[in-house]
Amino acid sequence: MEELHTFYYFLDLAGTFAFAISGATAARERGLDLFGIFSVAFMVACGGGIIRDLCIGAIPPAGLTNWYYLATAMFAATMTIWLFPVVEKIKRPVILFDAAGLALFAVTGAQKSLIFGHNAEVAILLGIVTAVGGGIIRDILLNRVPVVLEREIYASAALLGALIVVLGVSFDWLTNDWMSIIAIIVGFSLRMLALRFHWNLPAFSKK
Amino acid sequence: MEELHTFYYFLDLAGTFAFAISGATAARERGLDLFGIFSVAFMVACGGGIIRDLCIGAIPPAGLTNWYYLATAMFAATMTIWLFPVVEKIKRPVILFDAAGLALFAVTGAQKSLIFGHNAEVAILLGIVTAVGGGIIRDILLNRVPVVLEREIYASAALLGALIVVLGVSFDWLTNDWMSIIAIIVGFSLRMLALRFHWNLPAFSKK
Amino acid sequence: MEELHTFYYFLDLAGTFAFAISGATAARERGLDLFGIFSVAFMVACGGGIIRDLCIGAIPPAGLTNWYYLATAMFAATMTIWLFPVVEKIKRPVILFDAAGLALFAVTGAQKSLIFGHNAEVAILLGIVTAVGGGIIRDILLNRVPVVLEREIYASAALLGALIVVLGVSFDWLTNDWMSIIAIIVGFSLRMLALRFHWNLPAFSKK
Repeated sequence: MEELHTFYYFLDLAGTFAFAISGATAARERGLDLFGIFSVAFMVACGGGIIRDLCIGAIPPAGLTNWYYLATAMFAATMTIWLFPVVEKIKRPVILFDAAGLALFAVTGAQKSLIFGHNAEVAILLGIVTAVGGGIIRDILLNRVPVVLEREIYASAALLGALIVVLGVSFDWLTNDWMSIIAIIVGFSLRMLALRFHWNLPAFSKK
Repeated sequence: MEELHTFYYFLDLAGTFAFAISGATAARERGLDLFGIFSVAFMVACGGGIIRDLCIGAIPPAGLTNWYYLATAMFAATMTIWLFPVVEKIKRPVILFDAAGLALFAVTGAQKSLIFGHNAEVAILLGIVTAVGGGIIRDILLNRVPVVLEREIYASAALLGALIVVLGVSFDWLTNDWMSIIAIIVGFSLRMLALRFHWNLPAFSKK
Repeated sequence: MEELHTFYYFLDLAGTFAFAISGATAARERGLDLFGIFSVAFMVACGGGIIRDLCIGAIPPAGLTNWYYLATAMFAATMTIWLFPVVEKIKRPVILFDAAGLALFAVTGAQKSLIFGHNAEVAILLGIVTAVGGGIIRDILLNRVPVVLEREIYASAALLGALIVVLGVSFDWLTNDWMSIIAIIVGFSLRMLALRFHWNLPAFSKK
């Protein structure tokens, strides 16, 4: 299944790009300087995976060693800084990429934890961390309550994707490849449906 | 000393429960959604231990592998969400559990660092981190200055507990079990006395 | 080159001292209590190096095992608490020490990553993290946007220092010792010039 890996590779870079765009845009709006924008873009794209790799013992974290993550994040930040009109024009594909990245990161994050020999709980938790950790770091750096904890079906889509792939692999329902594809499609679809119909998880009004 | 380990086990779960209640309550008051409340509850209960385990090389962190920590935190969050009147009624035992958890986490955190072969300084510092790290993460996520850095004899109780057990073990004063019990009692008592008599560490007024 | 190592040792402690002073001063102004001031001072001095050590697999982190880092940070915090007039008087040497610490931490952080067998990208990224990570943690704990992401040529000086030493070592331009000295001098000079002439990186006005 050579095509599958090419497809993953494309999704991985597209997701990294979309995550970095979200980081760079938020940093720009907050008035950060060039270094700040590059840093936040990189941390949104790679932060979740770095925390996952520290927790599973994958040293050094992939986000720090593979230059194409850094390059993709720098490219996204550069666009956001000097070609902001273009970034505003590609808003819709970026939302698609973001949802795809969310689902893919959750699934590959969970699988990497399993490959390193850890149990289902670790895999599900770190799948979620891979997908939403970067966004949480972005909001901490920008000094606000992480949006993923406040509203929107976002982490839930990551949870669902990670859950499906971990259950599928544990109970040997289908091949790994098929389970991954199904999990990515389900996570992606839940996220897109939530965006389309403005689904939110219940919350309590602030005191 | 079979009873001792049953007793530890009970304290460990009671402390986890109390920490998760504090996280879930704070997250609920801040208006987070279901995922946010569960996440903050889990991070308060397990965050300090996860940082400790990363620092001592206990991979993967116990907070991620042992399902009963996750289950206890989820149970506490569920209660806080749907049975808030009950949570308000058990406020007083929760304060007791919290002080017990504080002392226990500091002592067991320090001991785990020693067992992994690290020195007294690492053990004391990571004992404190185990006890107060979760609360600091809670306040960072909720976008406020960590209360443990601002006022109250809280971290100091953790420091005292960790210090006693590390000194006791290093100089071989008593058996490990006895030193742990003494350290837990002293840490717990300092915290309860500070609460009772409103002791605070000195601070400087804000500029 | 025995003198060189004595010189490094002096710079390392001077940098740790200056970083801790910056943390303790900020914590004091924010109204934290004694424990808070000590904690923030320690985290500014050692936080960046601790993150680096977690990422390169240097367990336990040097900041937790070497008592002289803790002692230096505690000394700086103690001065800031009880001898604040003295701290205000030594403001100018502290700025010098801070710039020296910045350059030194970037260079030694990058070198430690290389020594642990990681690639140039890891070394440069973690050189920057070593130098600016503590300051970012300080600002997160004090609930504000990290100043290093907002303005000033600060991280850029760390980047330049790390870049020079990594390139120099990779391409074998000079001996390690000479490359380190050059990298430290360049990083330090860029920082001092930026302070002197109020250089900033470009930023965008807040929305």
